[in-house]
Amino acid sequence: MRVAALSGGVGGARFLRGLLGALRARDVAAEVTVVANTGDDITLHGLRVCPDLDTLMYTLGGGVDEAQGWGRDGDTGHVAAELAAYGAGPDWFTLGDRDVATHLVRTRMLGAGYTLSEVTRALCERWRPGVRLLPMSDQPVETHVVVRDPERRAVHLQEWWVRGHAETPAEGFPLLGLDRAVPAPGVLDALRGADVVLLPPSNPVVSLGPVLALPGVRDALRGTAAPVVGVAPVVGGRTVRGMAAACLAALDVPCTAAGVGGLLRDVLDAWLVDDADLGATRAALTPADHPDRADVAVHGTDLLMRDREGAVRLAGTALDVALGLHGATAGA
Amino acid sequence: MRVAALSGGVGGARFLRGLLGALRARDVAAEVTVVANTGDDITLHGLRVCPDLDTLMYTLGGGVDEAQGWGRDGDTGHVAAELAAYGAGPDWFTLGDRDVATHLVRTRMLGAGYTLSEVTRALCERWRPGVRLLPMSDQPVETHVVVRDPERRAVHLQEWWVRGHAETPAEGFPLLGLDRAVPAPGVLDALRGADVVLLPPSNPVVSLGPVLALPGVRDALRGTAAPVVGVAPVVGGRTVRGMAAACLAALDVPCTAAGVGGLLRDVLDAWLVDDADLGATRAALTPADHPDRADVAVHGTDLLMRDREGAVRLAGTALDVALGLHGATAGA
Repeated sequence: MRVAALSGGVGGARFLRGLLGALRARDVAAEVTVVANTGDDITLHGLRVCPDLDTLMYTLGGGVDEAQGWGRDGDTGHVAAELAAYGAGPDWFTLGDRDVATHLVRTRMLGAGYTLSEVTRALCERWRPGVRLLPMSDQPVETHVVVRDPERRAVHLQEWWVRGHAETPAEGFPLLGLDRAVPAPGVLDALRGADVVLLPPSNPVVSLGPVLALPGVRDALRGTAAPVVGVAPVVGGRTVRGMAAACLAALDVPCTAAGVGGLLRDVLDAWLVDDADLGATRAALTPADHPDRADVAVHGTDLLMRDREGAVRLAGTALDVALGLHGATAGA
Repeated sequence: MRVAALSGGVGGARFLRGLLGALRARDVAAEVTVVANTGDDITLHGLRVCPDLDTLMYTLGGGVDEAQGWGRDGDTGHVAAELAAYGAGPDWFTLGDRDVATHLVRTRMLGAGYTLSEVTRALCERWRPGVRLLPMSDQPVETHVVVRDPERRAVHLQEWWVRGHAETPAEGFPLLGLDRAVPAPGVLDALRGADVVLLPPSNPVVSLGPVLALPGVRDALRGTAAPVVGVAPVVGGRTVRGMAAACLAALDVPCTAAGVGGLLRDVLDAWLVDDADLGATRAALTPADHPDRADVAVHGTDLLMRDREGAVRLAGTALDVALGLHGATAGA
């Protein structure tokens, strides 16, 4: 079975680790391709940092800081402390020592002319994440945030989020570099040729948004023969993790499973939400005048990944929905 | 008093720390300019590493690993271990975590267009080494070593020394980039305008050699009104530290105070050697036909810097020689 997934960082990585567990538990031979958001990428201290790629690589490769959800396990901060002693900014983004090595290898390879796809493949030779990990694009795309504080200006997403904790109201999320970016080699083919496409619980605006904004991606998702199943990143009107609420507010979209589902409805065949949100989401995603023609099948489950087993269960449910085996709460 | 010194790494740095101690002990207000060899510089993992500048900065700034003589005190090797786990070479040159931060700041600044002089000044704002630390040149000059193993080829000095422990016989030391290099701003003026010029005990071939090879440096030393006093890096026919013996062998120069003194005699007014070497050195540096016209005054002392006090004592003796206060063993 060929599975393709789009993913952001922590939530997506944990879900995908659950997916690999679910596939193993079912003894299903699967080739999983993960298309990672690179809109979070940033150059710090001259190092090219790709937070979502790294979180996926470390999580699936067994090297992540479990408590934190990102960064390397057992990492130390000697380089960062020294950079601070030099007064070398920014001081709001701290790189762990082990993590620095990843960025050194990446930066050196990019400088030597390798593409981000090639670099990612090289890094994965060490991590063996059990999936084919692709950056969404080999061209740099960096998500910025338009804020008014008080002048209207755009700051890098990482600055808004890591430094400012997404507290400054956002007015938009321009993707710098998007006009020169195309999907990385293999991305569209993976979506078109998949047996199942999954959208793990990732921020719909700044994690899935940049991937979906690349030319051809939405069309590939709409055109693929595979069922496209998304997993909501919000439960009961609250973000499970991260800054989705602040991002959705900028778009005037309610931070609900229905709101996020609405953003993705053109590409989704099914939308997996928390049981508590099932009724409202199904109602919202079903045209009032054509109750029999809901274009998204809404399914309910327990959406929280409380531990690794919880992620296996949730990913298994998403697979069941895709394979038509999760009929109990099917909405369409 | 204006003191200027040329210097390589460990030996020079320890001597110069002693010099600052000697000046303090004598309550002499002095402005010390140190011109550091940059021929050892190398780019590793994309980072610009300047071993002699860093050894001087860390030693004079109170951050050096005392036992080792170079690198940061209390440094750790997490970045290096991770680079090795990625298989990212070279594996024969290990960068400590704290040291990596220095190279990150330097590399980023060089990439932004700052000169090595400007970068060094910025790094020294943190370290406050108590001297004006200048790179010998803002243009990269990298010392290579011609070896036959078995094909004749040139390898970077660091590879020959750190990886191969200088065991492969050297046939020469070409300075790559020398044809495009000039002394950094302030270098020639410091030598010309000094009251005293000191050549600390540094490798005459690969530490002092690159500095002396820059256009104008030898002329400035020959032309300066200041006494130029060198301190021999060999005692009793053996290198005090490092690889001088292997370097001198390539030049067919005996590894003796006389041999090294001969290499530098055109720029030296006085040459400070170990008491044990005094007679032989004086004899070798005095023209047989003009015993009254020795062009280098040879002085003897206990040359070993066994500890920090020993370095203060040795540097004090060198100062005394320069100031004409060390007459007991004066040879001319």
